Amino acid sequence: MKYRGKVVVTLKSGVFDPQGVTIKNALHSLSFESVEEVKTGKFFEVLFDAENDAEAEKLLEAMCHQLLANPIIEDFDFSLEKVK
Amino acid sequence: MKYRGKVVVTLKSGVFDPQGVTIKNALHSLSFESVEEVKTGKFFEVLFDAENDAEAEKLLEAMCHQLLANPIIEDFDFSLEKVK
Repeated sequence: MKYRGKVVVTLKSGVFDPQGVTIKNALHSLSFESVEEVKTGKFFEVLFDAENDAEAEKLLEAMCHQLLANPIIEDFDFSLEKVK
Repeated sequence: MKYRGKVVVTLKSGVFDPQGVTIKNALHSLSFESVEEVKTGKFFEVLFDAENDAEAEKLLEAMCHQLLANPIIEDFDFSLEKVK
Protein backbone atom coordinates (compact mmCIF):
# COMPACT_ATOMS: atom_id res chain seq x y z
CA MET A 1 0.00 0.00 0.00
CA LYS A 2 1.10 3.57 -0.73
CA TYR A 3 1.28 6.13 2.05
CA ARG A 4 1.91 9.88 2.19
CA GLY A 5 3.64 11.08 5.35
CA LYS A 6 3.61 14.78 6.21
CA VAL A 7 6.45 15.60 8.62
CA VAL A 8 7.01 18.87 10.50
CA VAL A 9 10.41 19.33 12.12
CA THR A 10 10.86 22.17 14.62
CA LEU A 11 13.60 23.28 16.96
CA LYS A 12 13.35 22.00 20.54
CA SER A 13 12.24 24.72 22.94
CA GLY A 14 15.19 26.59 24.32
CA VAL A 15 17.17 26.25 21.09
CA PHE A 16 17.85 29.73 19.69
CA ASP A 17 16.09 30.40 16.37
CA PRO A 18 17.93 33.28 14.67
CA GLN A 19 15.91 32.81 11.47
CA GLY A 20 12.72 33.22 13.47
CA VAL A 21 14.00 36.46 15.00
CA THR A 22 14.97 37.78 11.57
CA ILE A 23 11.55 36.97 10.14
CA LYS A 24 9.79 38.58 13.11
CA ASN A 25 11.77 41.79 12.57
CA ALA A 26 11.00 41.71 8.86
CA LEU A 27 7.28 41.27 9.59
CA HIS A 28 7.45 44.26 11.96
CA SER A 29 9.04 46.36 9.23
CA LEU A 30 6.15 45.31 6.95
CA SER A 31 3.83 46.83 9.61
CA PHE A 32 2.77 43.53 11.19
CA GLU A 33 3.57 44.99 14.62
CA SER A 34 1.32 42.54 16.50
CA VAL A 35 3.67 39.62 15.78
CA GLU A 36 5.16 38.50 19.07
CA GLU A 37 7.22 35.47 18.02
CA VAL A 38 8.11 33.45 14.93
CA LYS A 39 9.42 29.88 15.04
CA THR A 40 10.82 28.28 11.90
CA GLY A 41 11.01 24.65 10.89
CA LYS A 42 11.14 22.16 8.03
CA PHE A 43 8.34 20.34 6.23
CA PHE A 44 8.67 17.05 4.34
CA GLU A 45 6.13 15.09 2.34
CA VAL A 46 7.24 11.48 1.83
CA LEU A 47 5.49 9.11 -0.59
CA PHE A 48 6.36 5.48 0.18
CA ASP A 49 5.07 1.91 0.25
CA ALA A 50 4.33 -0.14 3.36
CA GLU A 51 2.49 -3.36 4.16
CA ASN A 52 0.06 -1.76 6.61
CA ASP A 53 -0.55 1.28 8.83
CA ALA A 54 1.63 0.00 11.68
CA GLU A 55 4.58 -0.63 9.38
CA ALA A 56 4.08 2.75 7.68
CA GLU A 57 4.22 4.49 11.05
CA LYS A 58 7.32 2.55 12.08
CA LEU A 59 9.09 3.33 8.78
CA LEU A 60 8.31 7.06 8.84
CA GLU A 61 9.36 7.32 12.49
CA ALA A 62 12.68 5.66 11.61
CA MET A 63 13.19 8.03 8.63
CA CYS A 64 12.70 10.97 10.99
CA HIS A 65 15.09 9.60 13.59
CA GLN A 66 17.77 8.67 11.07
CA LEU A 67 17.66 11.57 8.62
CA LEU A 68 14.82 14.09 8.57
CA ALA A 69 15.26 15.44 12.12
CA ASN A 70 18.37 16.08 14.18
CA PRO A 71 17.47 14.41 17.51
CA ILE A 72 19.82 16.70 19.46
CA ILE A 73 18.10 20.00 18.65
CA GLU A 74 14.90 19.14 16.80
CA ASP A 75 11.50 17.63 17.49
CA PHE A 76 9.27 16.11 14.81
CA ASP A 77 5.61 15.39 14.33
CA PHE A 78 3.92 13.64 11.43
CA SER A 79 0.61 12.58 9.94
CA LEU A 80 0.05 9.61 7.66
CA GLU A 81 -2.57 9.05 4.98
CA LYS A 82 -3.20 6.19 2.55
CA VAL A 83 -2.88 7.10 -1.11
CA LYS A 84 -5.40 5.55 -3.49
CA MET B 1 -6.73 38.17 21.33
CA LYS B 2 -3.62 36.06 20.77
CA TYR B 3 -3.42 33.63 17.88
CA ARG B 4 -0.94 30.96 16.81
CA GLY B 5 -0.71 30.44 13.06
CA LYS B 6 0.97 27.30 11.69
CA VAL B 7 2.07 27.84 8.10
CA VAL B 8 3.37 25.22 5.66
CA VAL B 9 5.03 26.52 2.51
CA THR B 10 5.70 24.06 -0.33
CA LEU B 11 6.95 24.33 -3.87
CA LYS B 12 4.27 24.59 -6.56
CA SER B 13 3.88 21.34 -8.53
CA GLY B 14 6.19 21.30 -11.49
CA VAL B 15 8.90 23.26 -9.67
CA PHE B 16 12.03 21.11 -9.42
CA ASP B 17 12.92 20.13 -5.83
CA PRO B 18 16.62 19.15 -5.80
CA GLN B 19 16.63 18.92 -2.02
CA GLY B 20 13.78 16.43 -2.19
CA VAL B 21 15.71 14.30 -4.68
CA THR B 22 18.80 14.37 -2.48
CA ILE B 23 16.82 13.32 0.58
CA LYS B 24 15.10 10.52 -1.35
CA ASN B 25 18.51 9.16 -2.43
CA ALA B 26 19.81 9.43 1.13
CA LEU B 27 16.77 7.52 2.43
CA HIS B 28 17.40 4.82 -0.18
CA SER B 29 21.01 4.53 0.99
CA LEU B 30 19.65 4.10 4.54
CA SER B 31 17.68 1.10 3.16
CA PHE B 32 14.32 2.87 2.93
CA GLU B 33 13.96 1.57 -0.64
CA SER B 34 10.16 1.93 -0.69
CA VAL B 35 10.38 5.74 -0.72
CA GLU B 36 9.06 6.94 -4.07
CA GLU B 37 9.19 10.71 -3.70
CA VAL B 38 10.17 13.37 -1.15
CA LYS B 39 8.94 16.95 -1.28
CA THR B 40 10.51 19.58 0.95
CA GLY B 41 9.06 22.79 2.35
CA LYS B 42 9.17 25.36 5.14
CA PHE B 43 7.21 25.54 8.37
CA PHE B 44 6.49 28.68 10.38
CA GLU B 45 4.70 29.16 13.69
CA VAL B 46 3.63 32.78 14.18
CA LEU B 47 2.34 34.10 17.51
CA PHE B 48 0.44 37.37 17.05
CA ASP B 49 -2.47 39.48 18.26
CA ALA B 50 -5.67 40.18 16.33
CA GLU B 51 -9.12 41.57 17.14
CA ASN B 52 -11.00 38.48 15.98
CA ASP B 53 -10.78 35.29 13.87
CA ALA B 54 -11.49 37.08 10.60
CA GLU B 55 -8.78 39.67 11.18
CA ALA B 56 -6.33 36.96 12.28
CA GLU B 57 -6.94 35.06 9.05
CA LYS B 58 -6.52 38.20 6.95
CA LEU B 59 -3.29 39.17 8.75
CA LEU B 60 -1.71 35.72 8.44
CA GLU B 61 -2.69 35.48 4.76
CA ALA B 62 -1.03 38.86 4.16
CA MET B 63 2.13 37.77 6.02
CA CYS B 64 2.31 34.71 3.77
CA HIS B 65 1.81 36.74 0.60
CA GLN B 66 4.29 39.45 1.56
CA LEU B 67 7.08 37.47 3.19
CA LEU B 68 6.69 33.83 4.21
CA ALA B 69 5.98 32.40 0.74
CA ASN B 70 7.33 33.30 -2.67
CA PRO B 71 4.14 33.55 -4.76
CA ILE B 72 5.98 32.71 -7.98
CA ILE B 73 7.16 29.23 -6.99
CA GLU B 74 5.53 28.43 -3.68
CA ASP B 75 2.09 27.56 -2.32
CA PHE B 76 1.13 27.99 1.33
CA ASP B 77 -1.44 26.56 3.69
CA PHE B 78 -2.08 27.49 7.31
CA SER B 79 -4.12 26.71 10.40
CA LEU B 80 -5.04 29.17 13.15
CA GLU B 81 -5.73 28.58 16.82
CA LYS B 82 -6.55 30.93 19.68
CA VAL B 83 -4.01 31.03 22.47
CA LYS B 84 -5.36 31.27 26.02
